[in-house]
Amino acid sequence: MATEEVKLLGFWVSPPVFRVKWALEIKGVKYEYIEEDIFNKSTLLMELNPVHKKVPVLVHDGKAIAESFVILEYIDETWKQNPLLPQDPYQRALARFWAKFAEEKILRGAWNALCSQGEEKQKALEQTIEAMEKIEGELEGKEQFFGGESVGYLDIILGWISYCLPVWEEVGSMQILNPLKFPAITAWINRFLNHPVVKDKLPPTDKMLVYFHQRSKALASTSHGNRAENGKNKNKTPRTG
Amino acid sequence: MATEEVKLLGFWVSPPVFRVKWALEIKGVKYEYIEEDIFNKSTLLMELNPVHKKVPVLVHDGKAIAESFVILEYIDETWKQNPLLPQDPYQRALARFWAKFAEEKILRGAWNALCSQGEEKQKALEQTIEAMEKIEGELEGKEQFFGGESVGYLDIILGWISYCLPVWEEVGSMQILNPLKFPAITAWINRFLNHPVVKDKLPPTDKMLVYFHQRSKALASTSHGNRAENGKNKNKTPRTG
Repeated sequence: MATEEVKLLGFWVSPPVFRVKWALEIKGVKYEYIEEDIFNKSTLLMELNPVHKKVPVLVHDGKAIAESFVILEYIDETWKQNPLLPQDPYQRALARFWAKFAEEKILRGAWNALCSQGEEKQKALEQTIEAMEKIEGELEGKEQFFGGESVGYLDIILGWISYCLPVWEEVGSMQILNPLKFPAITAWINRFLNHPVVKDKLPPTDKMLVYFHQRSKALASTSHGNRAENGKNKNKTPRTG
Repeated sequence: MATEEVKLLGFWVSPPVFRVKWALEIKGVKYEYIEEDIFNKSTLLMELNPVHKKVPVLVHDGKAIAESFVILEYIDETWKQNPLLPQDPYQRALARFWAKFAEEKILRGAWNALCSQGEEKQKALEQTIEAMEKIEGELEGKEQFFGGESVGYLDIILGWISYCLPVWEEVGSMQILNPLKFPAITAWINRFLNHPVVKDKLPPTDKMLVYFHQRSKALASTSHGNRAENGKNKNKTPRTG
């Protein structure tokens, strides 16, 4: 263990990258962080993730692993301390089910709402809020986190909601995180933001506002310029995997 | 173990349902199969999978699990015999990575090609074939299956290619499975179709041809009737999860 080498290729604001950071820090794994310019990708990124050419990429003793969901499973299997997934197979299945659900319906839904206008935006917003209601229901009755008393797999998957979603709401002039509608999620966000691996380690809000403003405008203009290929952008999250 | 009860809600042609069947049969788990009418969903399905209302649903001693990727992990964790995933964490990560890739790029790609026309179809076809090239590269040098000498996780995820994809090709008047271009995949398909858990247990081709002909026509007409919402159908696989 003494000689192991762990590197993480990331991008400063990326939700999937933060997942890997949080997981490594909960495990107490030391790693070297390498910031990637995702608009001018490095040879290293192309070599380590030739299929998707996206961050995050975790490199453990020379072995490269891509895709945040896959990386989290790898981390949990490789470093056994402070488990991320529950131990019981059925509870593990539920955590994976809700993680996939949240990714497809909330992260993608909110991003689609941010990058669209009019009726399309309205529909994306409604679907995102409907999905949030299901997550709110899952959280009710939990002690502190989705993972119980400590931050676990589903907390890490959903963690982006705490720092990114408020910025998307402001940039997109939309409301998703209504505290009256989602009291459990609101309380969870406060707890999550105060967790030692999260607190004081998030990007500055003003920098995020500028970035997502530019990014959503750029994507919206691509989408408007090519209406027939509308489906394309819908699946794109912020250039990271 | 003697009293355990395993049920599977499925649909006769569904690729995700066949994954669960194959996994249970490789494990030697006895189960009751319940055919679902996905066009007139049962109260049981609505109760067991209220979020997505889709098959497959595995019910193990009263606990319901949905989503084929999640179910496969559950099966592998619950019944340890004949492991589906490799034992080494890095090899597990690779299997999960390629499974996700194949789902997003090949299953979805081929389905989009089937349900579209003209330039859109051509683009979907090209992307699917490009993804197949990567899978062909992964398979080269493997002994028998993606899982080595026996059928494993990635074989199960990709198994639909062996029985469903040829039908989609015929219905959509398109070629993806070119044996000259994909000799390793072609040989793998033959081995997979002759595996004891697969052989003589697949739906009749003529029945599949009729079903997918009707289904792709129905989806294509929905898509044409509402061009602006084009993105909708792109993510839909054949009504099952």
